[in-house]
Amino acid sequence: MAEISVSKRLRRTPFSAGVEAAGVQAYTVYNHMLLATAFEGVEEDYHHLKRAVQVWDVACQRQVELLGPDAIKLLQILTPRDLSKFSASRCMYIPMVDQNGGMLNDPVAVLAGENRVWVSIADSDAGLWIRGIAAACHFDVQVFEPDVSPLAVQGPQSLELMSRVFGPKVADLKFFGCGRFDWEGTSFVISRSGFSKQLGYEIYVEGSHHAMPLWSYLMDKGQDLDVRAGCPNGIERIEGGLLSYGNDMTEADTPLSCGLSAYVSDNQLEACFGGRALREEREAGSPRKIAPVAISGRTPRCDRVWRATVNGTFAGEVTSAAWSPDFEETVAIAMIDRAFWAPGTRLTIETQDGPKQGTIREKFWI
Amino acid sequence: MAEISVSKRLRRTPFSAGVEAAGVQAYTVYNHMLLATAFEGVEEDYHHLKRAVQVWDVACQRQVELLGPDAIKLLQILTPRDLSKFSASRCMYIPMVDQNGGMLNDPVAVLAGENRVWVSIADSDAGLWIRGIAAACHFDVQVFEPDVSPLAVQGPQSLELMSRVFGPKVADLKFFGCGRFDWEGTSFVISRSGFSKQLGYEIYVEGSHHAMPLWSYLMDKGQDLDVRAGCPNGIERIEGGLLSYGNDMTEADTPLSCGLSAYVSDNQLEACFGGRALREEREAGSPRKIAPVAISGRTPRCDRVWRATVNGTFAGEVTSAAWSPDFEETVAIAMIDRAFWAPGTRLTIETQDGPKQGTIREKFWI
Repeated sequence: MAEISVSKRLRRTPFSAGVEAAGVQAYTVYNHMLLATAFEGVEEDYHHLKRAVQVWDVACQRQVELLGPDAIKLLQILTPRDLSKFSASRCMYIPMVDQNGGMLNDPVAVLAGENRVWVSIADSDAGLWIRGIAAACHFDVQVFEPDVSPLAVQGPQSLELMSRVFGPKVADLKFFGCGRFDWEGTSFVISRSGFSKQLGYEIYVEGSHHAMPLWSYLMDKGQDLDVRAGCPNGIERIEGGLLSYGNDMTEADTPLSCGLSAYVSDNQLEACFGGRALREEREAGSPRKIAPVAISGRTPRCDRVWRATVNGTFAGEVTSAAWSPDFEETVAIAMIDRAFWAPGTRLTIETQDGPKQGTIREKFWI
Repeated sequence: MAEISVSKRLRRTPFSAGVEAAGVQAYTVYNHMLLATAFEGVEEDYHHLKRAVQVWDVACQRQVELLGPDAIKLLQILTPRDLSKFSASRCMYIPMVDQNGGMLNDPVAVLAGENRVWVSIADSDAGLWIRGIAAACHFDVQVFEPDVSPLAVQGPQSLELMSRVFGPKVADLKFFGCGRFDWEGTSFVISRSGFSKQLGYEIYVEGSHHAMPLWSYLMDKGQDLDVRAGCPNGIERIEGGLLSYGNDMTEADTPLSCGLSAYVSDNQLEACFGGRALREEREAGSPRKIAPVAISGRTPRCDRVWRATVNGTFAGEVTSAAWSPDFEETVAIAMIDRAFWAPGTRLTIETQDGPKQGTIREKFWI
């Protein structure tokens, strides 16, 4: 494998010192920022994530702050999801779409204060889209990057660790519930969320100077829980069907084809960008959709789209794949055309090292 | 150094097969795409670039196409540069700024046909800013990514190689001149430009299927010129004062502070985003500006901002640095506060490995 060539442009994070001290082996780049991908090794990290607790530097989930009287009004035209239940105690996953209904990003939004929203973005500069619209429409809102860096605590022991650090009320958080919790004379917004299917939390660390003290505090309090530095795991997230923007969905996909129809509210389709296109797709049915695919044996790295065929006819594209030690097969995510998306369909998958056999599954693995 | 962890999200390019076959050692990520940073080694590549000719996969200079009756009108409100001389035979470097005059990108724009512009972007999703404005303002224009990937041919022997492949008329191109040139039954837009201070050209390869045939053709025709695969060189570009978006300038900087005042036209400041802020800065004088800095001896990798001080007082920030074999010192780029920007000023520069001594120079090295 080639090295990563670092420069200021690939931004370090307020937690980078901790990531380096923990022996990071590999990085990807996400929102122009370094994101670790392996510490002990992707498979070792995977087993540890499923049994213990990890602290993840996910500062690369950059924050776009919307501040001002029009913050919520602006947010609502960016997404087909109805935001009427958005509150300081409930964060929301909001697909963000263009005029054609194409996915521009799939962030989580947090209400951080009055007229103050943090949009925690996936890997595209969605802040530029938001700022372009805000500028052109003369909304009464400022849009900028605040000094807020998410830190995730993930794994079955995450509640135990979080309770030790932030108090027992962390246990009251429901999935996508959030609130402010005190720590060492300050307070952070914490949500029950994260890019794993394990129990997990995300801490919105406001103020970079708090980053390494909090990192060290978590490592210290979790020693007997075998806490370790970790990162979103390329195997576990596929098993759980967690889609990765840029991998499994792009501007060419709509939230409906991505299996996100629960986040497309009929009552918002008049007001938001892309609403008409989404209404038409909902009425006509999506031409393709995301599906889990099991592949026999190991594959090369999925560093490009793999074409999938049925009896020689194009059936779709595999966009992520990884060997699963627990399920002893390669777990994969694909975008499959309607004619072929029935579970059980056998696919021939063209990898860079030759064809592999796969089968569309009914559901993801976990 | 850590490895780079590849996935579909870090896009390969139509030239990746050539880059890999040439033995790429390291990558960075630029516009979500792989960009090689070293083949033989950064210093070996540097010497070769200055004496021979290299072919660079710069597909990561992604294209944003503006197509439609309002293409030029839209382009003009995005930049403070007067576009009246923009034509099919003249491409233009156009700083793109936000409402505050902050740099969002520093692309080159090419007029690729009637009402058809290609904006060749630096490392930010400037297409989202453009699309946000186009959507909100209801401009009659489509904004999308076309199947166009730039390939650069750089080095003192570049004209010889280009003439062999595209004919002797390539010699007529002046700096930032461009035109269409035939090749094997198709034609490409070619400009005399590129991210080096050597003689150089960029070929806008339209149609991915042409990419590897053209790459191989160039390698074949240039064998006796010692043509090699190369990439933007981190040493040579600093010597030449070529700024890198994300390294030496960000949204926090204006074109005026970046030494780009030649691209800020007084007659455009009423019409474009950020015009008022730029007019005020021009009248008041910039509070800081880009400067070349010579540093004694070698430094660690410049993977973060280095604070620069004068007698303990903050004076500015070093944003790029590399050891120059030809000048036998570390060449660097800094953003320096007005009080300290006089050439000859001695700086103490705080690197991650301790302080270094630097001096502000009058001019860049080449």
